[in-house]
Amino acid sequence: MAARGKKLINDPNDVVTQFIEGLAEAYPGVQYLDGFPEVKVVLRSDVAAGTYDKVAVICGGGSGHEPAHGGFVGQGMLTAAVSGDVFTSPPVNSILAAIRAVTGPKGCLLVVTNYTGDRLNFGLAAEEAKSEGYRVEMVIVGDDCALPPTQGIAGRRGLAGTILVNKVAGAAADAGLPLEKVAEQARHASELVGTMGVALSVCTLPGQETSDRLGPEQIELGLGIHGEPGAAVTELQPVDVVVTRVLKQILSPETQYVPITRGDRVILLTNGLGATPIMELMIATRKAVRELQLEYGIATDRIYTGSFMTSLDMQGFSLSIMKSDTTILQYLDASTKAPCWPAGADGNRQKPAKIAVPAPPSCAMKSDKMLQQSRELTKEGCILEVSIEAGAKEIIRIKDSLNEWDSKVGDGDCGTTMYRGAIAILDDMKKW
Amino acid sequence: MAARGKKLINDPNDVVTQFIEGLAEAYPGVQYLDGFPEVKVVLRSDVAAGTYDKVAVICGGGSGHEPAHGGFVGQGMLTAAVSGDVFTSPPVNSILAAIRAVTGPKGCLLVVTNYTGDRLNFGLAAEEAKSEGYRVEMVIVGDDCALPPTQGIAGRRGLAGTILVNKVAGAAADAGLPLEKVAEQARHASELVGTMGVALSVCTLPGQETSDRLGPEQIELGLGIHGEPGAAVTELQPVDVVVTRVLKQILSPETQYVPITRGDRVILLTNGLGATPIMELMIATRKAVRELQLEYGIATDRIYTGSFMTSLDMQGFSLSIMKSDTTILQYLDASTKAPCWPAGADGNRQKPAKIAVPAPPSCAMKSDKMLQQSRELTKEGCILEVSIEAGAKEIIRIKDSLNEWDSKVGDGDCGTTMYRGAIAILDDMKKW
Repeated sequence: MAARGKKLINDPNDVVTQFIEGLAEAYPGVQYLDGFPEVKVVLRSDVAAGTYDKVAVICGGGSGHEPAHGGFVGQGMLTAAVSGDVFTSPPVNSILAAIRAVTGPKGCLLVVTNYTGDRLNFGLAAEEAKSEGYRVEMVIVGDDCALPPTQGIAGRRGLAGTILVNKVAGAAADAGLPLEKVAEQARHASELVGTMGVALSVCTLPGQETSDRLGPEQIELGLGIHGEPGAAVTELQPVDVVVTRVLKQILSPETQYVPITRGDRVILLTNGLGATPIMELMIATRKAVRELQLEYGIATDRIYTGSFMTSLDMQGFSLSIMKSDTTILQYLDASTKAPCWPAGADGNRQKPAKIAVPAPPSCAMKSDKMLQQSRELTKEGCILEVSIEAGAKEIIRIKDSLNEWDSKVGDGDCGTTMYRGAIAILDDMKKW
Repeated sequence: MAARGKKLINDPNDVVTQFIEGLAEAYPGVQYLDGFPEVKVVLRSDVAAGTYDKVAVICGGGSGHEPAHGGFVGQGMLTAAVSGDVFTSPPVNSILAAIRAVTGPKGCLLVVTNYTGDRLNFGLAAEEAKSEGYRVEMVIVGDDCALPPTQGIAGRRGLAGTILVNKVAGAAADAGLPLEKVAEQARHASELVGTMGVALSVCTLPGQETSDRLGPEQIELGLGIHGEPGAAVTELQPVDVVVTRVLKQILSPETQYVPITRGDRVILLTNGLGATPIMELMIATRKAVRELQLEYGIATDRIYTGSFMTSLDMQGFSLSIMKSDTTILQYLDASTKAPCWPAGADGNRQKPAKIAVPAPPSCAMKSDKMLQQSRELTKEGCILEVSIEAGAKEIIRIKDSLNEWDSKVGDGDCGTTMYRGAIAILDDMKKW
């Protein structure tokens, strides 16, 4: 127990710069600005400042959401990503450095998540850049569907829907569209997407104590990607139930977070929050697709599943639903060199997902036949039957002990595996 | 606390089949065989059984290691992946079904991790397929460097190095090589790779209790991907220290796990074990590249960082080092449609990783000048200085309380952020 809060880091103050250094080692297509610790900017290594003949697309914000946004820098997506410290908006000078580093005559689009610090700092940097002669547009993403819409002045938080907006903006820019059109596409995409998250644990900040406010059997619905409290704490439930609840909230006809109704087609993004295995994310994806189809009459055109916009080591996921149209699909499918954009999710399915097992094994049929031939047991057969039954029952009895002993030397599932075998044997014998 | 063991699943018995259903929803390029629950096979949707004109490459094993191996099915990598239950080798009939579903006249290569169950079941399936007229070769991967080499008969375990072997085999097959040559390339690759893992926690099997044998300040070196005990339990240390230790073990001249010496070039794979954020993996990558270069005189040609062969929800990572040569690089760089093979890691770096900040902000210089102009404070200036200093010191004093209050409504870092600002202010004032 108590593994949470353990981290594979060095000095907690260096996590962001060391992440960027690692990222640049792994991906030869990205560079970073030599301005640590204040300036933490990742940019395309094939874009020369000043002469770039397309619209630059820049996104950024506090760190702790990796691979967002540095992992999405590459042709066809982001031109640069600006990182602040963990959960802290990047300073104005840092944003300005990113703008100067990649913006050519066609200008740049800043995609900004809707947080006070980000809006303030990106807004100031945009004004300063304009005063230096740059053409700058800004699009705000606020896709959160967890909290009541537009109470107060802060508005909805920017969540994983931002990744889809960045892909649309990056592809539009790559297609050669002018700044106003790129901004228009990004704004259009941002208005079509809604997101809600679910956490099984809150995250631990580097160098700080873990203070999970969730009990061992609790989950939190609608919490923010910085661990801000969410809409409700509830009991841990099967993921199918959780997915149903999340979709209901996003697609609520009362709040109208997103303009999606029966008969529409959508894009689904299942986003891991940092510590959730892909197995679990895919199980959530499976349910989301079926629920959309069966309960809402909504078809899913594209599905992206992975950890895109995380919250450090938080366990959990978010679902983002974006209304699909021809232009958006074209931009999402457009090729990109951004390392962390998922491959293989583009295009429509040409073949059925499920096909028949070829030439199915005939052993089962054979043994059925054999059983039919002789239903009477010999004396030795009866002794053997009783012995097998006794053995199987004993295995069932000592299942937990076997698991425990196995966990000392192996993976701790010996009892469970043997148990399944024993159950199958007893089932089989009952057929006689 | 106690978030470990919480899972986003439904019935623990259905995790593998529901993962496969989700995978097939997300990626239109894959299909699966309609043989649940026994037959769990993912295959390329563009390969027709019998008429496939290249060598089929099939890998498999117990589940719980997602995205391995279903996520690596696609042109240029695996033709099919066979999954067993969690941590349980797939049954012979299931492997045979995969062989029948994708193998054409050129035959198939089975890439098998070195575990007793896998060797037994894949070996039996291979024999049975041969008796049906199929051409079958088998390559065993045993890349583990944690345990003493070849004591006993079981040999070294198959770990994340298998992913690299599969990429090499898949690219060789895609290039049109005959079966013996594909097998030769795969065997060659398997002999050049060594892996060692480190865990911060053991994993929790679906539906079972978490029984972490590691204390809150402990990590385990060299443990297996099924939670098998490793070589040593040690105190939690900075990741740089851990990486140093892991590399030392892999590259040990005594054991000679891998034929890599000073002056060689290598491929590095930093593999997350399921619950480790990409930020932490990149920090490990950063250190590994530098340590290889500076301590061992070994250059890194390619770097792959992500969660490839996991161990359910285990926190931790493994490093795999493969000796690089022209052919292997060519196969690793070859394009593939396998969804989970990392994009953007191919090719050599053309531009430096770090470039200068363009037109650096001039504010700092300006204020330095201003400070030089007037070093004498007015009376009001002195009062202001004392007030600022008192304010900064008070912020430092109440850092933890600020963090705690912030954690009730936000992300719990207000104190840390203010603390940094206060320290910077005091530092700045000392310059006077």
